[in-house]
Amino acid sequence: MFEAAELGRKLSKNEFDEAEPELRARLLQAQRAARQAGLPVVVVIAGVSGAGKGQVVNRLFEWFDSRGVQVHAYWDETDEETQRPRWWRFWRTLPPAGSIAVMFGAWYTQTIYDRVEEHDDDAAHAAELTRIADVERMLVAGGALIVKFWCHLSEKEQSARIRKLRKDPQSHWHMAPETVHYAKRYDDYARVSAHVLRETDTAEAPWYLIEATDRRYRDLTIGRTLLEAIETRLAAPPDGVELKTSHAPSLPEGEDARITVLDHVDLGEVLERKEYRDQIEHYQSELNRLAWDVFHARKPIVALFEGWDASGKGGTIRRLVRALDARLYRVVPIAAPTDEEAAHHYLWRFWRHLPRDGYWTLFDRSWYGRVLVERVEGFATQPEWARSYHEINDFEAQLVEHGVVVLKFWLHIDREEQLARFTARENTPYKQHKISKEDWRNRERWDDYRSAINEMVVRTSTEYAPWHLIPANDKRFARVEVLRLAVEALQEALKG
Amino acid sequence: MFEAAELGRKLSKNEFDEAEPELRARLLQAQRAARQAGLPVVVVIAGVSGAGKGQVVNRLFEWFDSRGVQVHAYWDETDEETQRPRWWRFWRTLPPAGSIAVMFGAWYTQTIYDRVEEHDDDAAHAAELTRIADVERMLVAGGALIVKFWCHLSEKEQSARIRKLRKDPQSHWHMAPETVHYAKRYDDYARVSAHVLRETDTAEAPWYLIEATDRRYRDLTIGRTLLEAIETRLAAPPDGVELKTSHAPSLPEGEDARITVLDHVDLGEVLERKEYRDQIEHYQSELNRLAWDVFHARKPIVALFEGWDASGKGGTIRRLVRALDARLYRVVPIAAPTDEEAAHHYLWRFWRHLPRDGYWTLFDRSWYGRVLVERVEGFATQPEWARSYHEINDFEAQLVEHGVVVLKFWLHIDREEQLARFTARENTPYKQHKISKEDWRNRERWDDYRSAINEMVVRTSTEYAPWHLIPANDKRFARVEVLRLAVEALQEALKG
Repeated sequence: MFEAAELGRKLSKNEFDEAEPELRARLLQAQRAARQAGLPVVVVIAGVSGAGKGQVVNRLFEWFDSRGVQVHAYWDETDEETQRPRWWRFWRTLPPAGSIAVMFGAWYTQTIYDRVEEHDDDAAHAAELTRIADVERMLVAGGALIVKFWCHLSEKEQSARIRKLRKDPQSHWHMAPETVHYAKRYDDYARVSAHVLRETDTAEAPWYLIEATDRRYRDLTIGRTLLEAIETRLAAPPDGVELKTSHAPSLPEGEDARITVLDHVDLGEVLERKEYRDQIEHYQSELNRLAWDVFHARKPIVALFEGWDASGKGGTIRRLVRALDARLYRVVPIAAPTDEEAAHHYLWRFWRHLPRDGYWTLFDRSWYGRVLVERVEGFATQPEWARSYHEINDFEAQLVEHGVVVLKFWLHIDREEQLARFTARENTPYKQHKISKEDWRNRERWDDYRSAINEMVVRTSTEYAPWHLIPANDKRFARVEVLRLAVEALQEALKG
Repeated sequence: MFEAAELGRKLSKNEFDEAEPELRARLLQAQRAARQAGLPVVVVIAGVSGAGKGQVVNRLFEWFDSRGVQVHAYWDETDEETQRPRWWRFWRTLPPAGSIAVMFGAWYTQTIYDRVEEHDDDAAHAAELTRIADVERMLVAGGALIVKFWCHLSEKEQSARIRKLRKDPQSHWHMAPETVHYAKRYDDYARVSAHVLRETDTAEAPWYLIEATDRRYRDLTIGRTLLEAIETRLAAPPDGVELKTSHAPSLPEGEDARITVLDHVDLGEVLERKEYRDQIEHYQSELNRLAWDVFHARKPIVALFEGWDASGKGGTIRRLVRALDARLYRVVPIAAPTDEEAAHHYLWRFWRHLPRDGYWTLFDRSWYGRVLVERVEGFATQPEWARSYHEINDFEAQLVEHGVVVLKFWLHIDREEQLARFTARENTPYKQHKISKEDWRNRERWDDYRSAINEMVVRTSTEYAPWHLIPANDKRFARVEVLRLAVEALQEALKG
């Protein structure tokens, strides 16, 4: 692969000086157009040590209007990052709509390093490459442009460069004891890098292999390639072609076919008041103890609550957190996104609230809004919600890989119970704020929701993050059941 | 002081049950009204160990619509927090407009602890109390409501409580080895706490001393007090009365009186191309080396660039960062705030971008917008910008106390030079994006800006964070001068 980047390409100073002004003007134009179109641009600058990645970044910073460019490196991990799922640090640096993020090595540096140094075996490495391809595909499908550059030097050229760098006062040399290490293992790094590039060279996010021996050639080529990528993307935005899937917009006719997983939830479950008191006290006490145990074991917990309007999500959450020390948890209600959230991929706002190790985040509604309200109400297009099942499963897999205990509850009630609760809310002064016209509107689409819920459970109830369908016609039963399941999950997690 | 909270107040279960529903309904109403009014509410729950602060927080979480409440504790500091000025962790948890933040101990716990344990001497302690009062006054002036509760127990009651807690399965006991420690030093903590409460009991943010022996009395009293505080604040929002200050809206008549600090900037300074090349290379090389030295010394740098439109801020920043490893710095352009930023105190968006130890943040425009464009264009009211000199000085003092090197540059050009640059921008394709109608409008108000700049320099050029007024009619001179001053500042910082 890399022989294609050892051809001795170079540019004279004259050639460079002649080409630069026009390139620069067009890059600025493209940047403005991208801002207006709300296009987020991810530029990955990776490659061998000594190839001048820092110089490239500085050059881009100079060519673009720097006010729309953020540069990110990932070498100095904080504990807030190590204490969260691995990709959290990348999510927190993804560019909002209309701006450019230049990422040093992005998610590639660590992957290559881990394989060469044998922290990852082949299987782990392969899984990581699949993860990378998945994430990039997802970001591109979500509207981003990803342009990846690999700056290459031959081994000989690299040695020469390192010798020279040692003498250059602006060499960034102070940081680079590892440069020498990489250079010593040139072949190993080249072999693994070639494999990584091949495996992650996709139609959505292709790699551009750049011969980096000559600075002028390197920079101008990167500038031109990036320009073309932005212009091309702006000229032909991906269309929202409906995916050819079997996702049913509504339930089929015919009694049998209309049965969903919800019909198997036994809504007859009830708990008498006395029994409720005993049990809730028992489980709260258990949970309090276990929460400290998982805190000391540094296990994070993500619990999400979905359910019909008026199914009792808020009340259930309150019963649960009452058992927890207020220092340990955070409840995140999901309503309309802020503009910073709306300027990112829809999963960004959930990544942002992930708990550190040992802590809890409880989501009152969640990322499943994508395949529920957004699907049913048409806020997301069919391709958008259809691909999100896979995206969500991968997101949750990443949580679980990091050690997060993922708890997913659907609080189920039937239409009659909902009607009774809506009416009660309208008649109770301190509950009136809980009922709105929207609730009544949603209620009209009960069957569409039923179908969407069914598909959601079918597609996203995984062995690592199963759905719990909670019979919630009786609030007491539902609360105790949620607490019981939480206790069970924590006990299980502490065994592992 | 505390004898007022040892009077044996209590409430029967009946009294509590009778009062609770109405209180709850009114709290919800008040919360909704606060949301509509965009009022941020800070509730501080502090007090002696064993007084049940956690229970209070859980109760508030239950009474309010929990979707508008965030709970924050500050016991488990992350490295992202310790590597920034001390108040950063509080700023990141301040509530946005319309929501409620319940803070455990807030900025009080540490202060009291540091004095009792003699980490702070009297002088440091006094300075901290002044800081607290300043910050609270600033937040309240910025539109927030701060309500502070101190939950008190007598020494005898505390011992009894601790004995009981040990046996209670939901006691939070696992966390509280320090509880015993506090209890042993009851008198010391009581003495220091009383002093702290007195010193920080201001009209803007008064303390409410709560007798915490009886849970029902404690919770109901806190609920009622909080309700009244919110209702009162909503009924009578602070008016924007003009402060009686001598801030001059424009320069006085008469030649002499019209002289500003800007008139002493020698705009005749120039650098020839050859000399420029030598010097810029020299300082960039120095800066590169020093940047790594300050990185290893874990010193953060905050540099801000202000100046007339077209004074060359962007170009100067680019020359500076070219000397820096891209992993070390971040450039933050200040334009219109996002909605998350607009929902906070105006300094919040700057706090949010403060660098960690060893890193740089370069602000392209800054918090000084408050006393420049916002003042001149009337985006901030007179009381708002008038009080911000003090707020800004305190903000920068906090940076410096943490060890941040603060660099403030004003790039100065005269009107003729600006006109020439505006015209050139309009005639150069890749510069046209840099000039807008707004620039021409601002230019019309040259004299008002001159007056505002003068006052800004007078009031905010402190010994710990001085302004550097840079003659910038000659771009080359300005760039070299900024680099030279940066080099000098780093050298100085490394000595200390």
